[in-house]
Amino acid sequence: MTLDPTLAAWFDAHDQRLHDDLFDFLRIPSVSARSEHAGDVTAAAAWLHGHLARIGFTVETHPTAGHPVVLAEWRKAPPGAPTILVYGHYDVQPPEPLELWTSPAFEPAIRDGHIYARGSVDDKGQLWLHVAALEAHLATRGTLPVNIIVLAEGEEEVGSEHLAPFIAAQRERLACDGVVISDSTMFAPGIPSILSSLRGLAYLQIDVTGPNSDLHSGMYGGAVVNPAMALARILATFHDAEGRIAIPGFYDRVHPFPDAVRSGLSALPHSDTEFMRHLEVEALGGEAGYGTLEKLWHRPTCEVNGLLSGYTGEGAKTVLPGTAMAKVSCRLVPDQDPEEIARLVQAHVDRVAPPGVRVTVRALHGGRPWRADLAGPLYDAAARALRAAFGRDPVITGEGGSIPVVNDFATLLGAPVLLVGFGLPGENAHAPDEWISQANFRGGMRAIAALWDELAR
Amino acid sequence: MTLDPTLAAWFDAHDQRLHDDLFDFLRIPSVSARSEHAGDVTAAAAWLHGHLARIGFTVETHPTAGHPVVLAEWRKAPPGAPTILVYGHYDVQPPEPLELWTSPAFEPAIRDGHIYARGSVDDKGQLWLHVAALEAHLATRGTLPVNIIVLAEGEEEVGSEHLAPFIAAQRERLACDGVVISDSTMFAPGIPSILSSLRGLAYLQIDVTGPNSDLHSGMYGGAVVNPAMALARILATFHDAEGRIAIPGFYDRVHPFPDAVRSGLSALPHSDTEFMRHLEVEALGGEAGYGTLEKLWHRPTCEVNGLLSGYTGEGAKTVLPGTAMAKVSCRLVPDQDPEEIARLVQAHVDRVAPPGVRVTVRALHGGRPWRADLAGPLYDAAARALRAAFGRDPVITGEGGSIPVVNDFATLLGAPVLLVGFGLPGENAHAPDEWISQANFRGGMRAIAALWDELAR
Repeated sequence: MTLDPTLAAWFDAHDQRLHDDLFDFLRIPSVSARSEHAGDVTAAAAWLHGHLARIGFTVETHPTAGHPVVLAEWRKAPPGAPTILVYGHYDVQPPEPLELWTSPAFEPAIRDGHIYARGSVDDKGQLWLHVAALEAHLATRGTLPVNIIVLAEGEEEVGSEHLAPFIAAQRERLACDGVVISDSTMFAPGIPSILSSLRGLAYLQIDVTGPNSDLHSGMYGGAVVNPAMALARILATFHDAEGRIAIPGFYDRVHPFPDAVRSGLSALPHSDTEFMRHLEVEALGGEAGYGTLEKLWHRPTCEVNGLLSGYTGEGAKTVLPGTAMAKVSCRLVPDQDPEEIARLVQAHVDRVAPPGVRVTVRALHGGRPWRADLAGPLYDAAARALRAAFGRDPVITGEGGSIPVVNDFATLLGAPVLLVGFGLPGENAHAPDEWISQANFRGGMRAIAALWDELAR
Repeated sequence: MTLDPTLAAWFDAHDQRLHDDLFDFLRIPSVSARSEHAGDVTAAAAWLHGHLARIGFTVETHPTAGHPVVLAEWRKAPPGAPTILVYGHYDVQPPEPLELWTSPAFEPAIRDGHIYARGSVDDKGQLWLHVAALEAHLATRGTLPVNIIVLAEGEEEVGSEHLAPFIAAQRERLACDGVVISDSTMFAPGIPSILSSLRGLAYLQIDVTGPNSDLHSGMYGGAVVNPAMALARILATFHDAEGRIAIPGFYDRVHPFPDAVRSGLSALPHSDTEFMRHLEVEALGGEAGYGTLEKLWHRPTCEVNGLLSGYTGEGAKTVLPGTAMAKVSCRLVPDQDPEEIARLVQAHVDRVAPPGVRVTVRALHGGRPWRADLAGPLYDAAARALRAAFGRDPVITGEGGSIPVVNDFATLLGAPVLLVGFGLPGENAHAPDEWISQANFRGGMRAIAALWDELAR
């Protein structure tokens, strides 16, 4: 379980060129959210297309109603070898606010072992290390031990609207034995990590409507039900005093997570003190009886994302608001269903809303939770490959957020999904001064190169 | 107790001219809040100055750091006659949104017995009817039965910042036996009204601060105390299930209102059904055990005026907000003190705020409650004058809002204040299509003219 010395030597010899190529990729401002960058997004697709073709892949760039999908294939592995689909995205978040970048967002720079640039970790750098690992095999051996499909999209940062239809339409062609995605983080420096679960999401908007207009709080206050106060009182019923969600039925489909998960979590070097120091808070919250990582990764939540009512400017305006609004989102764990959760919230709100106001609950967005089945050759191979590249066993992590495409792959292709990422906490993925560590860039290339060998073992 | 026939005949004969003059006054767009209208505000002061001088007053226009104060005096009443100060304001609210006016805001128009124009009721029309009543006396008799001081300001709609200092500086000169203000409404058409109480105000801003920035609600949700949810839970402790304010000490200085007040209220033609229909709500709220008018006029409140936290735009953004803000105002009744109430709210919030967030309470604005002592010659005379003009006894009303200058007059001059207004519910005082009824304009002139006679009786 060490990396093949030939591959290791090739990475060492080509380190500068692999950096240079990544820098070229990062210089393309492929901001998918901005129409003025549409040409740059296409240019990034073309750059990727060209590189994959040069190293020996058959490449197609598929237009969509949005940004293109790059589909590259290499299917010359020995008979019986597995087929693996590598997914990544070549689009990036907008770089603003520009003035907070130490060096320009699209002019990569190395400082203190970090490569700084928009897209360095999310996700061009992590996509590129896959391409480099494929090149290493093909350059040193002229072949790969597994069949590989590379699927790269340019709309991940704007919702991947056209990806699921593409996968569905190409389902036969994309049939595979596993999906590998590097678009996540390691738990800490030096600790390779496999991400085994994602929470789902039920995002709701609650609107409280009272009198037919804003009223003078002096002339009407005290006799009219105040929508803002009604909203506060409704929201206050969402949790009990122990931080447990008090919406009837909310936990009905929540499965206790496996003991192995709890013991795995307790082995992780997490410090609540450090976590609080980082956030500059003096206490943590949430559901009593669970540790912080359990709360973040494996327990459902109900959070207020936004509040708006009445007068919110400087100073005093004596208005009794006619309406009040809250954005509320529930993070979900298996087997909670976003539509059912929306209905439960609606039913609860209907029960607790006071007379004198009308309350509506509208579902804005939903996604199902995902949990990997960690048994199987893909995960075993990944564990060995990570040990080979990083010198230690990987840890199993969870993620409190959602990556909708993971469910799309799992559902549409019926294949296990391996989330193995090389970012790190503090990487500023959607913020100024985004970075990937050089150690993880190098370790990631080597781990992925090892993964193909381990999968064929 | 009828209006002197000579005065009555004069009003009848000059009805058109009194309307025409009012229309001239209303055409001046004296919007005190808009610097581009500063010249118009000055022009309205000059118009008033000119008219008061023409009818026989000694008039001065005093510049302030803001808009001028017009001070007019007539002090030739028989020895022993009382001196009355009439207060009004010649500035108006901005007219926007202009497109909602049926006829232009500064081009007065009569429809269905209403005079429509910005300032028609608030307060040019009500100030003008005082001037007309003074002219009626001076034109028909060459004298007035009481000494009169007219004090008109141009900053009422922007907070009367320079009025209290002016009153304080001119305290000797403004010494009087009573202050009369017409800047309020009658309870209903045909029901003359004396406004006997105003609620005070403690306007607060509550800021809840959690983590040092907005966080991803997926990555952090469930373990970090959410400032928006904490704010909702704090606000939900402000009232008990009966609508009673649950902030310890809040009611300590609240005096039960006199039985006479309660019986007076029950005699008023108020209908909760009509009130709800007007507001388009299906139920009323507030403190159990009190009627609507009691709640609006004589009980303190604690209302949310504004809420702001996190993401409030269209659609979904999965943010765990770093901060949350509420504007909260308490309406106060005798002898509650705005500063003490702010301290009680602060202490309560400190008690109920969860660990993990910091909460501050900032007092933005305050005013003391006011209640008239309805005994005394000023009120007796007013009751007789209103009966003479409107053919029935006045009712005693309260006002849930605040008119800060009333306390200034009461405190600085030590004189009783009579609030006798001729507006009506639905008059759109700060909204498009502001109006005063012609019946009340005419009745108001006659009532005030009668008041001077009644005061000398």
